[in-house]
Formats: sequence, C-alpha cells, structure tokens
Amino acid sequence: MVSVQPITVAQYGIGPIGAEIVKLLMTKSWIRIIAAVDVDPQKIGRDLGEVIGIDQRLGVKVTADLREKPAVVCHSTGSRLRQVEPQLRALLEHGSHVVSTCEELAFPLDKEVRENLQKVARANNVTLLGTGVNPGFVMDKLPLTLSAVCQQVRSIEIIRVVDASLRREPLQRKVGAGMTREQFKQAVKDGKIKHMGLKESLMLVANGLNIDLDQVSEEKIEPVMAEGPIKTQYLSVDPGFVAGVHQTIQGSKRGTIDLSLDIKMFLGAKDPRDEVRIKGVPDVNMRIDGGVHGDRATAAMVVNCIPRVFAARPGVLTMDDIPVSFR
Amino acid sequence: MVSVQPITVAQYGIGPIGAEIVKLLMTKSWIRIIAAVDVDPQKIGRDLGEVIGIDQRLGVKVTADLREKPAVVCHSTGSRLRQVEPQLRALLEHGSHVVSTCEELAFPLDKEVRENLQKVARANNVTLLGTGVNPGFVMDKLPLTLSAVCQQVRSIEIIRVVDASLRREPLQRKVGAGMTREQFKQAVKDGKIKHMGLKESLMLVANGLNIDLDQVSEEKIEPVMAEGPIKTQYLSVDPGFVAGVHQTIQGSKRGTIDLSLDIKMFLGAKDPRDEVRIKGVPDVNMRIDGGVHGDRATAAMVVNCIPRVFAARPGVLTMDDIPVSFR
Repeated sequence: MVSVQPITVAQYGIGPIGAEIVKLLMTKSWIRIIAAVDVDPQKIGRDLGEVIGIDQRLGVKVTADLREKPAVVCHSTGSRLRQVEPQLRALLEHGSHVVSTCEELAFPLDKEVRENLQKVARANNVTLLGTGVNPGFVMDKLPLTLSAVCQQVRSIEIIRVVDASLRREPLQRKVGAGMTREQFKQAVKDGKIKHMGLKESLMLVANGLNIDLDQVSEEKIEPVMAEGPIKTQYLSVDPGFVAGVHQTIQGSKRGTIDLSLDIKMFLGAKDPRDEVRIKGVPDVNMRIDGGVHGDRATAAMVVNCIPRVFAARPGVLTMDDIPVSFR
Repeated sequence: MVSVQPITVAQYGIGPIGAEIVKLLMTKSWIRIIAAVDVDPQKIGRDLGEVIGIDQRLGVKVTADLREKPAVVCHSTGSRLRQVEPQLRALLEHGSHVVSTCEELAFPLDKEVRENLQKVARANNVTLLGTGVNPGFVMDKLPLTLSAVCQQVRSIEIIRVVDASLRREPLQRKVGAGMTREQFKQAVKDGKIKHMGLKESLMLVANGLNIDLDQVSEEKIEPVMAEGPIKTQYLSVDPGFVAGVHQTIQGSKRGTIDLSLDIKMFLGAKDPRDEVRIKGVPDVNMRIDGGVHGDRATAAMVVNCIPRVFAARPGVLTMDDIPVSFR
C-alpha cells in the first residue's frame, strides 16, 4: 500500500519524456514534486510548470544539480548507460531511489557498469530501476508474466508492430521514413536508426526464466520499403523509399528454449499490435490490439513503478524483480 | 536468481491438483521433494509416486503430518480459508514458507483470519501466498500488470469464457450441466455451484490499484441454458437444460473507477478466451485466444511462485506483492 505521507519526487531531465512524467506526477495525490534538474541554461532558474509548457506554476525551480533530497528521482536524460552512469551514481550517493528511462538500464549488459552501480546502490541503501514501455514492459515484463501459467516453455515469440504514422514527427524520422535503401543502410551503420533496448529485453526475459542462453544472434536492422505512396501529417514517402524499420534478435538454449523478439515501426503499418506467442504447456497466445502506445505508456511505467521501487530491496533491480500496476 | 542448492519442498494434500503439482515439481532441477502429507488412510504410508499414479517411486512416503522441515510447502487441500486455516497456521509455525491453492487465500477477506495468519507468518519469518490461475492470475494479477502502462484508468472489464466441454467430468458437473433451471437455482442456494475466488479477484485488483471501493455488488450466479443439444465425452444436455454457469461481480469508486469481472463456464462455449479491456490513457485491449487452461496452469502458478516466495519478505502476501514468470 502507498504510504499516507506523499512520496517526495524530483524530475531529472526535462525533455519531452521528462515533461510527460512531470504532468503525470502532478495528478498523483501520493506524490509531491520537490525538485527538477536539467543541464539546459534556457531551463535553469525557471519554474518547472513554465518549462514543461503548462499554464500553472509549480513552485519548483529548475536547477543545474539536485539540492533537495527526494525519496525518489525520475531520471530521463539518455539511452546509453555509459553516458548516464555518472548521473545515476551521483543520485544514488545522494541517497535517493532512482527510476530511469535509460533503455540500456532495463538490463545492464555492461558488467563493469552494472557492478559499480550495484555497489553504490547497496552502500547507500537505495534502489535503481530501469523501466519504460519498451524496453521495460511489452517485450519483456509482459511476456515473462504470461509465462507464469506454463508448466513448460519451448519457445516465446514476441512481436510488436507500431504504425509510426500515428506518432510524432521525430519518431517518424527516426525510423528512417523517406530515405533511400542506401541512406537507411548508412544511417544504421552510423547508429542513427536503432530501437534501443531490444537486446536488453531479450536478456531480461532469459534472466527472468532463469536460463543461460548459449546462443544470441546479432541484432538485425532492416528497412521496410513503402509499397504505395504514404502521406502523414508530417511527411510523404514515395513507393520504393523507406517506410520504416524492422528489427529482430533471437536467443536460444539448445534443446531447451527459443526466444525471438521482432519489432516493426513503419508508416502505414497494418494491424499494429503487441503479441506474445508461447509454445509450451499450455500454449499462451496473447495480443493487444492496436499495441500499447509508447509515449504515454513510458511516463505511466515510470510513475507507476515509484511505490514499488520505494518498497523494494536496495540494489540495481530490473522489471523482473518487482510487481507492477497502475497506481 | 534461483539458488544453486535445490529448494526443499513438501506437498500437502495429494488430490488431483496436488498430484499435478508433484508431477511438475519432479521436472525442476532446482527443487527437491522431501515430504508429502495427506489425511487419507489409503494414501498414508505409501510412496508418493505410487499415490499420484506414476510408474516411478519417489522415495518419499506419504505421512499424516509433516515431520521434515521443507523450505516451502505446496498446500492444496481446500477452497475455504476458515477450513484450511489450522493447517496453514501449523505449517507456518513449523517454519516453512507456504504456497497454497486455497481460493479464499488469494485475497483473504476475513479480517480476523488474515490478521492471525499475518501474525504467525511474521513471527516465524516465513511467507504465505495464495495463488492459482483463477483466482491468482487471469482475472487479477494479469489485469493489474497490464494497467501499469496506463496514466489513467477509468474502468477495467475482465472477461473469462471457458468451454467446459473440453474439461474433465467433475468440472462439467460442477458448472451445473444437465440440470433444470430449478435444480440449478437450488444448487446455487446450497453453495454447490460457485466459481470460488471471484470476489477475492475483484478485491485483489482494487487493492493493487490502491483504490478503496465504495460499492461492491452482490455476486450473481446465473445459468447458461443449452440452445441446442450438447454432447461431450461424459454427458449429454438437451435444449432448455443448463449448459453451465455465468458469474459476475462489479465494484466501483464513484467518479474514479469501475471494475467488472465476468466469467462464463459452460459446455460448448464459443470463442473461449481471457480478455482485459482497460478504458484509460491509453486504452489497453488484451485477449488470450482459447483462454488459459485451468488445471495445467494452476500447478504451474504454484511451482513458478516458489522461488519468488522464497525471495519475498515474510508475511501474508498476495499475487500483487510478487513478480512472476516461468521458472
């Protein structure tokens, strides 16, 4: 149960996702926002409400570093663990629990970083969690939870199809829409087109099932080509140009289990959905029609995890370590 | 992670579900079965393998009470909390964690019993969990988990449709198949036709969402009448007679949320499924085609919860307190 005293929270990083998190935090009676941090000189010193573009002052000034001591910090500054590690470490040393949208934190693959953070979190008796909708839920936590009804699991196929034409412009561009096949290949090489966290989801699932994979494929990132002309609110794509991205990874333990993760994000995708197909005893075939909406759900996951992190044991946790629900 | 030393387990209650649990426990390398308990004089003194009807001796004799001290006891003797309370209490005092299929334990509504068990569990530093597929998963744990992606939840509709003609004979009879409408009404009055745990599921969901319901409906138990002749492996039902049962309950907090649980179990049910419809931000519409199979999944839930209970804090827990997955 949530405690009667509100949980004090700071927002660290006030980009689009940080702003969405703040707006949601504001609706929760069991939360009190006491601080906000960002590196942007344009934001520092201004009221948080003004910075996130709402017509309301929140009485919290954005600062360059954290002066208060909130119980929990919502952290949303970057996808790469190496880049955000110093921030996370400082917050843990500060004595706050941290819930972060950093995709690579969903299941930290870098052993050195993971062990460093583990040490700092435990030494300061606080908890660090990476969460989000993907990674963090639809391609890892949800399939893991569904597998609980199985006596045996031979394979799990996890499929996400996103119609990018319904999403904001940056995402439409990020999936490569409008590029030639060659431009797309180059952008993949340059690390500019990639859904972050797919390998983390795979390893999170394997770890939750308590399986040491003996084979993990390379991550494949391929273009989805437009078959007809596509027009969205923001851009037009002619046939023969790229409509979006198709990314896959597989892992297996021979004679035991096959795992497959498959995500498509492209303009005009038919039948957008989240799907989990477990072959086992019994089989489980789950689908979420339309799929879970990424932007709204990421903020929801962060905020809904706060009371769970508050109640959890200290250390670096993954979504497999805590229960979740709307709060 | 599961420890390298196997977890020692006892099976308490060796009816059909207990036998299914034992068969599953046998397949897990991280479990060692060290004891088995039943009250039936026909079972006491015999090898557990023989009692569950497999062609293998397990080297564990069924006893009338627990002599060993297992880390975890799988308990499966009854649906009513008042009836099994003395057993649960003795097991906790014995110093073992307990995972039970007792439906009323999924969310103990009897405050006195709950507080007694809570006291005993904490005093002995052990954990007590009620689980199963329903209650325990499809109509409570799964909807709760799905709600984690929501910023707002206005209503949750939880629907389960089971085609009883595919299940074993006792279940076909238990749903009232073949009765007249009057016989069915009488059987409901006598408490002979009832899916146990529906109210517990409702309260478990409300509690997980941290909502105090200000209205909870009566549980409605109605017959589903056969529209045409039905013939299963075990019985035949003529049109105009009962094909099965339709049971519902609702709860709400005015201006906040509406919850509705609806289960149908009847011969020849079309489109058997588990469905969760969340109206909120965003909406979530999930379905599991065919539905999760009850008998196999109940044993799976019990066994898959063992490592989670082993790692959890002491006390009376519900499925909302622990993460789950296949193990």
